[in-house]
Amino acid sequence: MAVEQFPGEPISQTGRADDDPYAGTGLPALGFRNYWYPVMAAWRLGRKPKAVKVLGEDIVVFRDKGKLYALAERCPHRGARLSQGKCLYPGSGTISCPYHGWTFSGETGACVAKLMEGPEASAAREIAVKSYPVRELRGAVWVFVGDIEAPRLEDEVPEVLSATEDWHGFATWRTYRCNWRIMKDNLCHDMHAPFVHRNSPELMFQPVFPFASRLAAFPLEDDSGIGYVSKDGVPSADYPGLGTFPPKQETWYRFLKPTGRGKEIKAEDRAVVRYGVKYRQSSLMPGATFIGRPSGDYFVLRWVTPIDADSNFYYSWSLFRRQGWWRTLKQRLFWVCWLSWAHDWLFSDQDKRILEKVIPGKELHSRTDAGMIAWRRYAADHARRRAEGDAKPAETLRPPAAE
Amino acid sequence: MAVEQFPGEPISQTGRADDDPYAGTGLPALGFRNYWYPVMAAWRLGRKPKAVKVLGEDIVVFRDKGKLYALAERCPHRGARLSQGKCLYPGSGTISCPYHGWTFSGETGACVAKLMEGPEASAAREIAVKSYPVRELRGAVWVFVGDIEAPRLEDEVPEVLSATEDWHGFATWRTYRCNWRIMKDNLCHDMHAPFVHRNSPELMFQPVFPFASRLAAFPLEDDSGIGYVSKDGVPSADYPGLGTFPPKQETWYRFLKPTGRGKEIKAEDRAVVRYGVKYRQSSLMPGATFIGRPSGDYFVLRWVTPIDADSNFYYSWSLFRRQGWWRTLKQRLFWVCWLSWAHDWLFSDQDKRILEKVIPGKELHSRTDAGMIAWRRYAADHARRRAEGDAKPAETLRPPAAE
Amino acid sequence: MAVEQFPGEPISQTGRADDDPYAGTGLPALGFRNYWYPVMAAWRLGRKPKAVKVLGEDIVVFRDKGKLYALAERCPHRGARLSQGKCLYPGSGTISCPYHGWTFSGETGACVAKLMEGPEASAAREIAVKSYPVRELRGAVWVFVGDIEAPRLEDEVPEVLSATEDWHGFATWRTYRCNWRIMKDNLCHDMHAPFVHRNSPELMFQPVFPFASRLAAFPLEDDSGIGYVSKDGVPSADYPGLGTFPPKQETWYRFLKPTGRGKEIKAEDRAVVRYGVKYRQSSLMPGATFIGRPSGDYFVLRWVTPIDADSNFYYSWSLFRRQGWWRTLKQRLFWVCWLSWAHDWLFSDQDKRILEKVIPGKELHSRTDAGMIAWRRYAADHARRRAEGDAKPAETLRPPAAE
Repeated sequence: MAVEQFPGEPISQTGRADDDPYAGTGLPALGFRNYWYPVMAAWRLGRKPKAVKVLGEDIVVFRDKGKLYALAERCPHRGARLSQGKCLYPGSGTISCPYHGWTFSGETGACVAKLMEGPEASAAREIAVKSYPVRELRGAVWVFVGDIEAPRLEDEVPEVLSATEDWHGFATWRTYRCNWRIMKDNLCHDMHAPFVHRNSPELMFQPVFPFASRLAAFPLEDDSGIGYVSKDGVPSADYPGLGTFPPKQETWYRFLKPTGRGKEIKAEDRAVVRYGVKYRQSSLMPGATFIGRPSGDYFVLRWVTPIDADSNFYYSWSLFRRQGWWRTLKQRLFWVCWLSWAHDWLFSDQDKRILEKVIPGKELHSRTDAGMIAWRRYAADHARRRAEGDAKPAETLRPPAAE
Repeated sequence: MAVEQFPGEPISQTGRADDDPYAGTGLPALGFRNYWYPVMAAWRLGRKPKAVKVLGEDIVVFRDKGKLYALAERCPHRGARLSQGKCLYPGSGTISCPYHGWTFSGETGACVAKLMEGPEASAAREIAVKSYPVRELRGAVWVFVGDIEAPRLEDEVPEVLSATEDWHGFATWRTYRCNWRIMKDNLCHDMHAPFVHRNSPELMFQPVFPFASRLAAFPLEDDSGIGYVSKDGVPSADYPGLGTFPPKQETWYRFLKPTGRGKEIKAEDRAVVRYGVKYRQSSLMPGATFIGRPSGDYFVLRWVTPIDADSNFYYSWSLFRRQGWWRTLKQRLFWVCWLSWAHDWLFSDQDKRILEKVIPGKELHSRTDAGMIAWRRYAADHARRRAEGDAKPAETLRPPAAE
Repeated sequence: MAVEQFPGEPISQTGRADDDPYAGTGLPALGFRNYWYPVMAAWRLGRKPKAVKVLGEDIVVFRDKGKLYALAERCPHRGARLSQGKCLYPGSGTISCPYHGWTFSGETGACVAKLMEGPEASAAREIAVKSYPVRELRGAVWVFVGDIEAPRLEDEVPEVLSATEDWHGFATWRTYRCNWRIMKDNLCHDMHAPFVHRNSPELMFQPVFPFASRLAAFPLEDDSGIGYVSKDGVPSADYPGLGTFPPKQETWYRFLKPTGRGKEIKAEDRAVVRYGVKYRQSSLMPGATFIGRPSGDYFVLRWVTPIDADSNFYYSWSLFRRQGWWRTLKQRLFWVCWLSWAHDWLFSDQDKRILEKVIPGKELHSRTDAGMIAWRRYAADHARRRAEGDAKPAETLRPPAAE
């Protein structure tokens, strides 16, 4: 599927007369089950268990002797929260409920003891709470929420995230008070950047990004999502009866040359040759966004983890290829002194301010939404939940034409 | 209709077993559509658009080159809030959505450009958001919420509000956390004043207002509402088994003479002769209260603007007839140093404290509710919504007998 | 009913697929009607009326000339809250609505005057608000919520509470943000104490309470509730694959001898001989807990008063037998300097932290829940509501075997 040809507007509409205004997208309100999600920064998980909510499920995450465990948060006995308990027997990989000491194996979720009932407690081992696959990778705690066997986490994320010996990086995270779909929509090569971010500290002295471009989306070869290509954009345009965009009063201070950011990746670029990244931006299942540069030296990965119907957890990595300690040091300083502030804070805040106030309802799509629409279609067709019996032919996307 | 004869109590009851405990009044929970409402003080609307909620509708109000515009707040593209955008092209009378720059004419609501899609964006002009008639008058921004052509605002408000050359005035405003009907009920010559306000700074040294009076309501000649007349009140009464009202312990400090306030207006008073105001208090559609003095020199106008089912916006004007700069100066000082504090703040707070805590439900009406009942009947019968096809004979009020 | 024999686990389950996850218990979400409940500390009720919510009912409590009154909070006229009014005529035992002065007898609830309508107001006396039996006892204001004639309060509480000449005491109270049933469950000789409280300041230097005991419950002879007996507990146990409970790292500082607390009461103990208290802990209707010591010198009474479905008011007395002024002084100092802080504050907080976070739902019962299950059964069978017509044989408990 190349969504280059626009049949006219609106090309589609979402919204139905039921509780979920985005039901028409085919994307579930609580996110796609059967995927890995980052749920918190690993350094924040110390000796005390932590409660997280992921895809609407209450989960306790804890460590014992360095090993991570994740279980359902609610004790089946009387409903107390396991995250208020602790690992009473270090090395056992268990957590004990704070109320009557029902003790559960972090590995299997089985109840291995009811402390207040004594060692002869009957039937303890027939009781279990749900156990979640959990991992630590690139500084984050990841949890697999679903009903099937979890695939290897490393097989699910781009190489630049898992190959820690070749890449160093940083992450930031924030909670957004909006449904995860509104958040992910914003990250689908959505053509708001030249408008929303044009006066962010990062971009205000450069010409605005090209806009009014034609956007196409192609399935990735490894079936992990879609990649975007954009063509024919302009850095400025005249609108009859209005004036120029960007507005004249904003042009005099745009004296810098554009940075490489936003350039398409060519077949001979190192990003392709070395890392197989053909698109400068792609949408990955179950709701991630991957952004590369032709140099192959810098990547950005953003993961949207649904919390519940009204909020999501946004985890964003900036990843640099290791090129010696001196470069690494410079990159770290650059991130600490500039990127973390200018991009992860101020730039992202411009989106956050808008997204958290969106009034969900009927949409009226336009050319600028092509990336989002392609994502919605791909995700609805390829989500793992579909593989459980009623598998659809699904592959409605054609292999990408040679760009 | 003169509601002088009380057939016995309770003369009526409100409340039905559905969601709206005031459904039985015939007054809509979100207010009467097809009327003008003050929505904010004009000076508060600067260069940034402002969002208001009126009768449950989200509206953005903005200015461009001094002209006012009001549009539906939600952008039909992806649901962002127009009030977070701005007028990018001064003089064009447009507002641009903060997300992708869809730009709407403040005049018509039509989409005149989709900035991020370029000037050739198709079909933009077939898209529109709702546009609301909006005006500035006597320091307030007024919006007409409805489905019919808006009448001239000046034809809808008392002359003393629109004739700015002859009258000067002040306004205060507050948000009340109760349904607009509870608020308006309180303003229908409701006989709570001698009780609730008897110890307010304004009134505590005077005898209490007469109470236990008979109240009658008459339709105004211009069909804009009803006027109230009260008779036979007493300033004190003995209650068997209880004692006197006002209670004895409150009488020793009431050494002042009563002010003219609360006196009925006679046919020869200037209020009648010059301004046609025959009643000292009247209830005007769609929920306003007009209070005059026989001298014709001072009027008070109070407008209740429904926000949503649980809150309303209360706009209150004190209006003085211009009688030379010296009198104007004195009146201004009087308002600033006394009225604004003693009346608009402390006196009104006595009502606010009670009204915001009312537990809606079945009511048990009494003689003291005659003004409120007359208002409810008049408003339910005369609201403009009724004029749309199923017009009722409605005129159940008889012309006022000569008082 | 002696619930000594455990048929195997889970012995029962609660939770149904409707709104109330505890519906299966047979205990009403808002508490048992037709009982007395403490609703506030008496010293907190001064000259201003106070609003309380009890079993979901809004009630105003006020004093006049030392006498207590309790009425429904909502004025039937226009819904204002009587607690915002006051007693205008001291000695009359009335309260006047803050809005139009409808005045109600505290004794009967009858409307004795409509102040703003004058003394001739018709039919006032046919109007009434609900009047609640109200008393002051042992420092608390008690209200009877129900539909039958209230029994004497002194007949409903243990003698040690009502006999103020023989006993002195202290009370604390807190609001818990959980349903009253979750709170009362915690007080049914529930075997969480050795676990939850083992490191509270009161207990941390003593061996933990015996756990893994067998718990039995017996109906009290006066039909006021059930008493608990526990047997065969151990102060320590080994759990295969885990270790010892209490955990080894917690044993070195447990150097004190156990206090008498938690000892069973024998037939020759003064508690039995003098006060007829045979059980060290009992659950009393409608949701109270009574705890005694063999010496008969010290009792604790805890009353759970439902506020609404999501919160309850917990009133707890520590009661000491008067044994001369010197002992009384010492006990008072002991309570002020130690008990109030160590027990009523820190110890109770350990429960509060867990209970307020319980996720209600299906439960999986165990031996340690025997006290709670016995309470639920007894209360569901013996609640006064059952006596209104569809009286059941109810007595499913057998008289207690001689312990």
